Amino acid sequence: MQYTIKQIAEALGAESQGDLSVTIERAAEPADAGPSDLAMAMSPKYADALSAGAARAAVLWEGADWQALGLKAAIFVPRPRMAMAGITAMLDRGQGVEPGIHSSAVIDPTAEIGEGASIGPLAVIGARVRIGKGAIIGPHCVIGMDAVLGNDAVLREMVSIGARAQIGDRFIAQPGARIGGDGFSFVTPEVSGAENARKTMGDQGEVRAQSWLRIHSLGAVEIGDDVEVGANCTVDNGTIRNTRIGNGSKLDNLVHVGHNTRVGQDCLLCGQTGVSGSVEIGNNVVLGGQTGVVDNIFIGDGVISGGGTKILSNVPKGRVIMGYPGIKMETHTDIYKAQRRLPRLARDVEALKKVVSKLPPSD
Amino acid sequence: MQYTIKQIAEALGAESQGDLSVTIERAAEPADAGPSDLAMAMSPKYADALSAGAARAAVLWEGADWQALGLKAAIFVPRPRMAMAGITAMLDRGQGVEPGIHSSAVIDPTAEIGEGASIGPLAVIGARVRIGKGAIIGPHCVIGMDAVLGNDAVLREMVSIGARAQIGDRFIAQPGARIGGDGFSFVTPEVSGAENARKTMGDQGEVRAQSWLRIHSLGAVEIGDDVEVGANCTVDNGTIRNTRIGNGSKLDNLVHVGHNTRVGQDCLLCGQTGVSGSVEIGNNVVLGGQTGVVDNIFIGDGVISGGGTKILSNVPKGRVIMGYPGIKMETHTDIYKAQRRLPRLARDVEALKKVVSKLPPSD
Amino acid sequence: MQYTIKQIAEALGAESQGDLSVTIERAAEPADAGPSDLAMAMSPKYADALSAGAARAAVLWEGADWQALGLKAAIFVPRPRMAMAGITAMLDRGQGVEPGIHSSAVIDPTAEIGEGASIGPLAVIGARVRIGKGAIIGPHCVIGMDAVLGNDAVLREMVSIGARAQIGDRFIAQPGARIGGDGFSFVTPEVSGAENARKTMGDQGEVRAQSWLRIHSLGAVEIGDDVEVGANCTVDNGTIRNTRIGNGSKLDNLVHVGHNTRVGQDCLLCGQTGVSGSVEIGNNVVLGGQTGVVDNIFIGDGVISGGGTKILSNVPKGRVIMGYPGIKMETHTDIYKAQRRLPRLARDVEALKKVVSKLPPSD
Repeated sequence: MQYTIKQIAEALGAESQGDLSVTIERAAEPADAGPSDLAMAMSPKYADALSAGAARAAVLWEGADWQALGLKAAIFVPRPRMAMAGITAMLDRGQGVEPGIHSSAVIDPTAEIGEGASIGPLAVIGARVRIGKGAIIGPHCVIGMDAVLGNDAVLREMVSIGARAQIGDRFIAQPGARIGGDGFSFVTPEVSGAENARKTMGDQGEVRAQSWLRIHSLGAVEIGDDVEVGANCTVDNGTIRNTRIGNGSKLDNLVHVGHNTRVGQDCLLCGQTGVSGSVEIGNNVVLGGQTGVVDNIFIGDGVISGGGTKILSNVPKGRVIMGYPGIKMETHTDIYKAQRRLPRLARDVEALKKVVSKLPPSD
Repeated sequence: MQYTIKQIAEALGAESQGDLSVTIERAAEPADAGPSDLAMAMSPKYADALSAGAARAAVLWEGADWQALGLKAAIFVPRPRMAMAGITAMLDRGQGVEPGIHSSAVIDPTAEIGEGASIGPLAVIGARVRIGKGAIIGPHCVIGMDAVLGNDAVLREMVSIGARAQIGDRFIAQPGARIGGDGFSFVTPEVSGAENARKTMGDQGEVRAQSWLRIHSLGAVEIGDDVEVGANCTVDNGTIRNTRIGNGSKLDNLVHVGHNTRVGQDCLLCGQTGVSGSVEIGNNVVLGGQTGVVDNIFIGDGVISGGGTKILSNVPKGRVIMGYPGIKMETHTDIYKAQRRLPRLARDVEALKKVVSKLPPSD
Repeated sequence: MQYTIKQIAEALGAESQGDLSVTIERAAEPADAGPSDLAMAMSPKYADALSAGAARAAVLWEGADWQALGLKAAIFVPRPRMAMAGITAMLDRGQGVEPGIHSSAVIDPTAEIGEGASIGPLAVIGARVRIGKGAIIGPHCVIGMDAVLGNDAVLREMVSIGARAQIGDRFIAQPGARIGGDGFSFVTPEVSGAENARKTMGDQGEVRAQSWLRIHSLGAVEIGDDVEVGANCTVDNGTIRNTRIGNGSKLDNLVHVGHNTRVGQDCLLCGQTGVSGSVEIGNNVVLGGQTGVVDNIFIGDGVISGGGTKILSNVPKGRVIMGYPGIKMETHTDIYKAQRRLPRLARDVEALKKVVSKLPPSD
């Protein structure tokens, strides 16, 4: 792939200056950039690194003096991360997909493969599966019977799609993602200690030891358009209804979404976040890395949780939360500051007690 | 699959009323139920939803007036979740397993495959492996040499079973589960900072930078009967002895069990729980989601931990714990409440200090 | 495999006594040891267990009376865990690798396979991949185009190596490890609530709902020599530069390392640890299980974190930390102790307030 500065700037809708015919093959950090690289120098802190490298062209912060920086051409962007989306999409060299269906793939004769789709080596496609146009199914993927996958999906290697999953267009799955494992749902014949402890907040009562009976997952997973799921993450089948991920939501690596849970649109679930079963998550929710969400609660639209937050109860719309348990971030910060002073506070109270004990008794 | 209300009620040992010949193909949420669905309406809160749907039959809470709800037949259950176990087992449509050994599977000639077992496409079965009767080995599973898998196992796709693993009957493994990776065990030639810091609770002393030497795992994994492991979870080989999971225990997705650890019977380890090496876990233990357990401790029978608990020391039998570090849930709640009031407490102490400082000096 | 006590002692550089011609096939725990097992009894607490077993030879603590313990031969080691590294390496029976390239593997004709390398069943090797001498590629591994893997690598089954990854010698990957998934990097057209909340520590301001645009990963993963990665762990591609893991570092199961992050040399990242993107981690860092690291910070050489620590800001070199947020372990312990006394402290303050309120007014 090779682009001129003119082509890149036009694709971004960005301003450009200098020799717009300079050609670019890759993006690079300013210090590492060679003559055919586009240096990503989007803030003044990269000025020195630019000189250290050998870039002829760069993406620069607004107002930068590209000639003084020794460049032949420059692109100016008002929101650098936004420009990254466009530039990286153009320059992505991908994983090397071959067109057509690999001869080693095991495909049920009743499966329907859309026009232009690519099925990688050793993929297994079940009965009555429907795969959309232009989809790329990586090596070693397994798609269960009756699953539907939309147009232009990109599955990296070793992705699982369980039976009856319904997935929209432009789905992206990183290696080892698991859509449609069975939900984790068990029950004891009589009330269990865990049930009691939840009700009483700590007392499991007198219960006898019991074994667990399995509740099977009759539901599947339903995923909207423009969803991405990370490497080795897991989205479980629902019990009766489907588990759902809304349009535009993105799951990072090792994220877990439990059975029946509904994730709204345009959410981000960051690395290793775990959402239990039967949770309702609104739209535009951002859960920081390693967030945990207890089962059977709701999280309103636009909620944001800081990394490591454990959400143990409903969260109203728009709230920014943090901590274990997750509470309003401002409140969390206040408590945290007070905690840091807690050893001193304890000493103050001891001192006060001594002073007060020596006071003449009030009558 | 199709059942009459009579058949389902009999299988559950439950009371039924109305036209017991009504036939059912699936279970459904009350509002979504069609004429051939069994509506799951096990509490009065579903009454309205029932009317919204088109179910002819439902599983109802005790005492419900099924005729007034517009139904033709009803099943009554005293413990709804328990009924779910029976109903979902009957109506599970599964993943579409084909009988016999798929021609693309790679099976060592010394492996013994039990009667009626199904081996999916592209599975790899090592030397001297023994697989029990009626087992279902999903596509892309890999079973290492000398491993033993009991009767009626169900492995979904891409499950790993390491060499020498010994697994009982009715084992269930969700996609991507890893049984028998090597334990994470390393040592430095001289005492390391981490060893010192553990002893001193915070001081790593003066240590030189060292590289890590690997301790290999000579042990394997030993799993009892009726165990289930979730998608992408990992159970490591022991160092000298085997790592063990007792009968009836269930591991959720992305759970990690370290080398040498012994999990007792009928335990539940919920999503993303991590148990370090050489831990002894008793029977009927329930660890909530994202629980962490430090190495070389024991957790007594019947212990329950709330979600997000980090268990850093031994836990006596029967205790319900929560927090980081995990302590008795009641104590945790008390401390937590006091923390919420901490900023106010600090202000009170400041006020007291002011008042007391103005008091006439005691002599 | 069979070794004499003499051979084992020499390999360890350890002192031995008794009949050095006794032969050993396996290591065993003292109580389980049979006549051809080497009992691992490295501290006096194993004395009774030794008698319970049937070992003829043992590895013993310094100064142990091997004859009184009923043994025929003994090996004495000053640092037991260190001896474990040597002994377990000798006695490891492995996973049963067959030499050569399995006929079912799918190998691009442009790939270069080093001398003596073994490629397992159904592995997929992409275009221009280079695999070093003596490497073992397990069943079902997928190696993307242009990736380079050094000499003597050992990949267990179902390991992913993304396109353009560069990996050094003696690399070990446990089942399901994912090297080179795409980074989790998204941006909204306008400033998002999450961006605001980070700046203000809790206020996301007035933002409109937006969808996420994808930033592609143009970088790859670069891994040094002697690195090991655990089962189902994930190391993501960098955005512009490569994500890097330094020589000698070890990642446990289910560990996540985000895009652009650089992990130094000889680090240990324990189970389920998650490191966000663009983190700089020094050398000889040990992160306890379930540690979380926020993005764009640095962690100095020799830092140690206790299990469950959430690292939310830069950590200077040599520090031992714990907690959420992670702070100096000693400080954390002080605060924690004060917290335990917090309910009592609150009662004390209430009592003081009562006493003080009854005092005669000052001035």
